[in-house]
Amino acid sequence: MSFRQRLEQAIARHRSLLCIGLDPDPARFPEGIASDAAGIVAFNRAIVEATADLVCAYKPNLAFYLSLGAAGIEALARTRELVPPEIPVILDAKLGDIASTSAAYARAVFETLGFDAVTVHPYLGSEALEPFFAYRDRGVFVLVRTSNPGAVEFQDVPVGDAGDPLYLWLADRVREWNERFGNAGVVVGATYPVDLALVRQRCPDLPLLAPGVGAQGGDLEEAVRAGLGEGTGPLLVTVSRAVLYASRGSDFALAARAAAQELRERIERVRAELRARATGA
Amino acid sequence: MSFRQRLEQAIARHRSLLCIGLDPDPARFPEGIASDAAGIVAFNRAIVEATADLVCAYKPNLAFYLSLGAAGIEALARTRELVPPEIPVILDAKLGDIASTSAAYARAVFETLGFDAVTVHPYLGSEALEPFFAYRDRGVFVLVRTSNPGAVEFQDVPVGDAGDPLYLWLADRVREWNERFGNAGVVVGATYPVDLALVRQRCPDLPLLAPGVGAQGGDLEEAVRAGLGEGTGPLLVTVSRAVLYASRGSDFALAARAAAQELRERIERVRAELRARATGA
Repeated sequence: MSFRQRLEQAIARHRSLLCIGLDPDPARFPEGIASDAAGIVAFNRAIVEATADLVCAYKPNLAFYLSLGAAGIEALARTRELVPPEIPVILDAKLGDIASTSAAYARAVFETLGFDAVTVHPYLGSEALEPFFAYRDRGVFVLVRTSNPGAVEFQDVPVGDAGDPLYLWLADRVREWNERFGNAGVVVGATYPVDLALVRQRCPDLPLLAPGVGAQGGDLEEAVRAGLGEGTGPLLVTVSRAVLYASRGSDFALAARAAAQELRERIERVRAELRARATGA
Repeated sequence: MSFRQRLEQAIARHRSLLCIGLDPDPARFPEGIASDAAGIVAFNRAIVEATADLVCAYKPNLAFYLSLGAAGIEALARTRELVPPEIPVILDAKLGDIASTSAAYARAVFETLGFDAVTVHPYLGSEALEPFFAYRDRGVFVLVRTSNPGAVEFQDVPVGDAGDPLYLWLADRVREWNERFGNAGVVVGATYPVDLALVRQRCPDLPLLAPGVGAQGGDLEEAVRAGLGEGTGPLLVTVSRAVLYASRGSDFALAARAAAQELRERIERVRAELRARATGA
């Protein structure tokens, strides 16, 4: 089964577009959770157990594991294993290297660590990304418009005869890459809802990963409307800190569940509204 | 002491611009070296002991370690430690994420693993790279023109009113970032000597890391002429496979030394020729 099929099944089964970013920051851990690799696994286990029926995917970010060295990577592997098998797990690592090195990364992410999908940088072009795309049953999300405030410095440079901002030119490329490989997706920050809508127009059928709601300030309802648009491709609304650190007390897992539940309901209200509008039209 | 000072000292002490890429591929290991993490450390130790007086830096690439999971990252940490302290070690990881995540990566690379410099992607802009630049005594090499055949797909898109290819527009940005932060460098593939010369013109004073000589087909002499140019910034000529896998026999370390020695001598001949020309002019 393809990544896309597994993702769509999880979306349908859990009636959820919510993807929780498993970005453990020991400095923000609740009391009673150790600040080491064992603490990371304990924290993630509590979060996953409290939220697994509310999400369509999880997305750990490599940085927060690598910062603990080898023990952190061991915690990442154990985190992958503790997610129930029906929920896809995306490694957010923003990889991008020459093809022979990408082959080693693809082996690391898809074989050694067993993730369902990965995020990648576009800068080296599709030739360098082919070793990722070659795993046809996994997903490859290409950074198109990132969620950070400084994204515009590089991504808004006007390119080509049309003077499109670079990120929109790239959105067209990723759509073409998906025609060739079948397993591409796009990453677009929820902090830029207008740009999110424009990318969705250019990539109506692609999986779209939208981080930036919550701590980064993206508006949830706006992001869901823009990210679904008239498209048929699945949308993943990624939230990390607003769920993980909803409470620093011993009730942190319950608080995370409540936060996730509220986010899922708000997303579902927008979906219902969009469905009603489509039916009414 | 800054990364740049440490690098320039190593260049002067070893009379070398050669940087060996420590990219261990167990499938290509010589007989008698195990295909596991312990084998990687044994292989790297033999290579470093055989070549340490011939190089100005080493550059392990994260992919080849992460592909073995936690044990591979342990091997990376041990590889970092076995390099003599006077030789800087650059982690080639091509990182690039939002600022709060970059902070976790910078901690991983500079604190947990103790590297002297790192390679990064420019796509999220300088705001997202600041946590790396904030380590003022470390180096931050930004990908400008990569060595792979498909680099042109993205990096040659004409941008702005001048219609510059994207990588040259970026070279100007990295020069500006270096004016702000003081510790930026550029990565330019030796496989594109004309582009290498153009980037050197725009960034005369920046450290320039040039991979692609050897297995990737870059011409050494052309790359050294282009990468030094009229500039004052140090050039690092990175070679990996052509040194590491010079022999698959039990003489692999001696063969690696001979290959490194020949590369260093060829680089030094070009430097002598350029010095003679400058003095004659």
